[in-house]
Amino acid sequence: MRTDRHPQDLRVNGGRLLDRLHALAEVGQIPGGGCARLALTDDDKAGRDLVVSWMKDLGLDVTVDVVGNVVGTWNVGSGSPVMTGSHIDTVRTGGKYDGNYGVLAGLEVIQSVQESGHVPPRPLAVAFFTNEEGARFAPDMMGSLAFVGGSPVETVLDTVGIDGARVGDELDRIGYSGSIPCPRIAPHAFVELHIEQGPVLEQQNKTIGVVTGVQGISWQEVTITGQSNHAGTTPMNLRHDPAYAASNIAVFLRDLAARFGGHQVCTVGKIDLHPNLINVVAATATLTLDVRNTDEILLQAAEREIAQHLDDLAAREGVTITTRPLARFEPVEFDADVTSLIEEIASAHGHTHMRLPSGAGHDAQMLARVCPTSMIFVPSHKGISHNPAEHTDADQLVAGCDVLLHALLSLTHPEVGQ
Amino acid sequence: MRTDRHPQDLRVNGGRLLDRLHALAEVGQIPGGGCARLALTDDDKAGRDLVVSWMKDLGLDVTVDVVGNVVGTWNVGSGSPVMTGSHIDTVRTGGKYDGNYGVLAGLEVIQSVQESGHVPPRPLAVAFFTNEEGARFAPDMMGSLAFVGGSPVETVLDTVGIDGARVGDELDRIGYSGSIPCPRIAPHAFVELHIEQGPVLEQQNKTIGVVTGVQGISWQEVTITGQSNHAGTTPMNLRHDPAYAASNIAVFLRDLAARFGGHQVCTVGKIDLHPNLINVVAATATLTLDVRNTDEILLQAAEREIAQHLDDLAAREGVTITTRPLARFEPVEFDADVTSLIEEIASAHGHTHMRLPSGAGHDAQMLARVCPTSMIFVPSHKGISHNPAEHTDADQLVAGCDVLLHALLSLTHPEVGQ
Repeated sequence: MRTDRHPQDLRVNGGRLLDRLHALAEVGQIPGGGCARLALTDDDKAGRDLVVSWMKDLGLDVTVDVVGNVVGTWNVGSGSPVMTGSHIDTVRTGGKYDGNYGVLAGLEVIQSVQESGHVPPRPLAVAFFTNEEGARFAPDMMGSLAFVGGSPVETVLDTVGIDGARVGDELDRIGYSGSIPCPRIAPHAFVELHIEQGPVLEQQNKTIGVVTGVQGISWQEVTITGQSNHAGTTPMNLRHDPAYAASNIAVFLRDLAARFGGHQVCTVGKIDLHPNLINVVAATATLTLDVRNTDEILLQAAEREIAQHLDDLAAREGVTITTRPLARFEPVEFDADVTSLIEEIASAHGHTHMRLPSGAGHDAQMLARVCPTSMIFVPSHKGISHNPAEHTDADQLVAGCDVLLHALLSLTHPEVGQ
Repeated sequence: MRTDRHPQDLRVNGGRLLDRLHALAEVGQIPGGGCARLALTDDDKAGRDLVVSWMKDLGLDVTVDVVGNVVGTWNVGSGSPVMTGSHIDTVRTGGKYDGNYGVLAGLEVIQSVQESGHVPPRPLAVAFFTNEEGARFAPDMMGSLAFVGGSPVETVLDTVGIDGARVGDELDRIGYSGSIPCPRIAPHAFVELHIEQGPVLEQQNKTIGVVTGVQGISWQEVTITGQSNHAGTTPMNLRHDPAYAASNIAVFLRDLAARFGGHQVCTVGKIDLHPNLINVVAATATLTLDVRNTDEILLQAAEREIAQHLDDLAAREGVTITTRPLARFEPVEFDADVTSLIEEIASAHGHTHMRLPSGAGHDAQMLARVCPTSMIFVPSHKGISHNPAEHTDADQLVAGCDVLLHALLSLTHPEVGQ
């Protein structure tokens, strides 16, 4: 698959990439070096305006669609563009790299190629998608989902956020309600560069993560109703204790993940007891189950085992257990050819690398519905993300951008990414 | 021990007992038939005034001590009085029986004996103790503790409540800052009649509970610090998850209680995770451990096992676990002779009965420090207490009061309760 039709010694301008990252991080800056640019707020508008100005500085054709996704296209060659991109909205306590890195790396790739004199046989495009984080408007990855036709535009525009604002009104207000319809024309191929947001690359001492796909997610809320009682006067055999049942479920999930092994992860991150007092057997417990696997068959098997365990537990403890599905996404498998291409480029450049799935959701998983797609990860220090302490070393940021450049250029060749 | 020197066919006036219970329940009444008479509030004062008026109607000598404990004494015979009593303060959502029943049953016993023409060889006294519940001022059982010299009077008076009020000021304000010093002169013997506040008597279909003692209590708060991480991107083997550790501890406590058996109870009633989000491995967890046993040796053994488990768990999970003791009381064993006396009377009257420890604290456990003491329980429907739904059947309330009458009269005899 690897081709040699573009200059193999081309490298991005790392200093310029870092400068843009720091400049964008100043928009909506929060203490500790992070950013708060919730989707479609004034800070998001300021960030968008800055990135659009950079797109225009590079002579890109900037188009905005009806849900506010912005694409900057270097209209060279012919056919549909090879696209990269990510998002520039952040969570309330975001870091400077999540999303921003993939967008600004795309700009840097185009500028470096432009400066090299090489003219690709297809357009190169860089996009930023609306509301990837979902921190203000649910669901997350809203813009890329609409981009590929996965959600009706009206549904997106009528979405009301945590502050009561409507997506359509906010797009109008900040001037990003565009005229390009969704779904948009599919790119020729899509590659997203992102920080890992997990500890694996650092722990394995690898610079480049070759992303094989995105884990499937099963989220549910479990509510347990028992019998509130005095902690001193109620013998153990007469208890119907939701706090015990909740704890039992959390321990069961840990054991399930160990038994399944592989990429199975299970998390109980939220437990609420009522009345939550030291000397009262709880009346109710509510907890959330976050279960993920790269394999849909295994994910379904985990869901079945959990359902059976909840039934058995309810019968044994004399409690009532109800569940409410909160989210369910099947695993996404990225294009094998694009993934191999990234791996070959990382090797050729002498970067340490490994294959891994993404545990978090990304815009690339939506683009994977309509074109050959994959992702490149760089390490996140201590796995920290969604936090001002989010950090990736400068040389790793530059290495990832170099791999992106060569992946995108390779994909512009006729025989690649069909 | 049983004597026949008083009229064995004497019975209390059940209707009058119930009338007084209902009348007192109207003071500080809350929806659902319960009461809110937090210690030393205006409602508590109104309740105190009503009970004192009834004491005076019976010709009792009413004395108030420096911490507001009130004793009504029928000064007959000679020597120190045989005393009964409990408390009339309630929690914010109290029922009508907790505490009140024991005080008003004492009044009814004295009135019934007075009407019978029998004159006991010793005084009979009925007390209500200040702030048994601890719902406004900590600790609970404050008045009875001072009564027996277990707490300096100044410490009690200087206690500041959840609303910022000082015990001494509130006693002055409501007119219950008395002149009798504490510790007061020890009674000859003490018997407290109380609702069980647990489900055992109802479940075992017994009318009378012969209380053998009060469980020892070990309360601690456990704080677990781990590493907050993304629930999707963090492999199981790289986690340091306080929510899992907290759940593991709750399950361990349940298993410990099952292994120890007997009167061992363990409760995790309070768990607080931070940040408590579905897709974030928690950074910290705080939970409370409520561990009780009637046997101090076993209670210490449980504490040692828990400490060892926390150490092992912290090492295994790579989390930090710290503990903070919140309360520690040794078990109280009631006087064997007084306990047997109650059991014999319950049998003689044809009441079903059983021995059991108290899982809750009561004023009687303080009096047990200075005189032969025991308690009588009657059933609590479904074990519900500290709730307007608190209920005991009328015939059970009357049966308990009859047993109290004969226990107190038996204890007035010279050879009993020495």
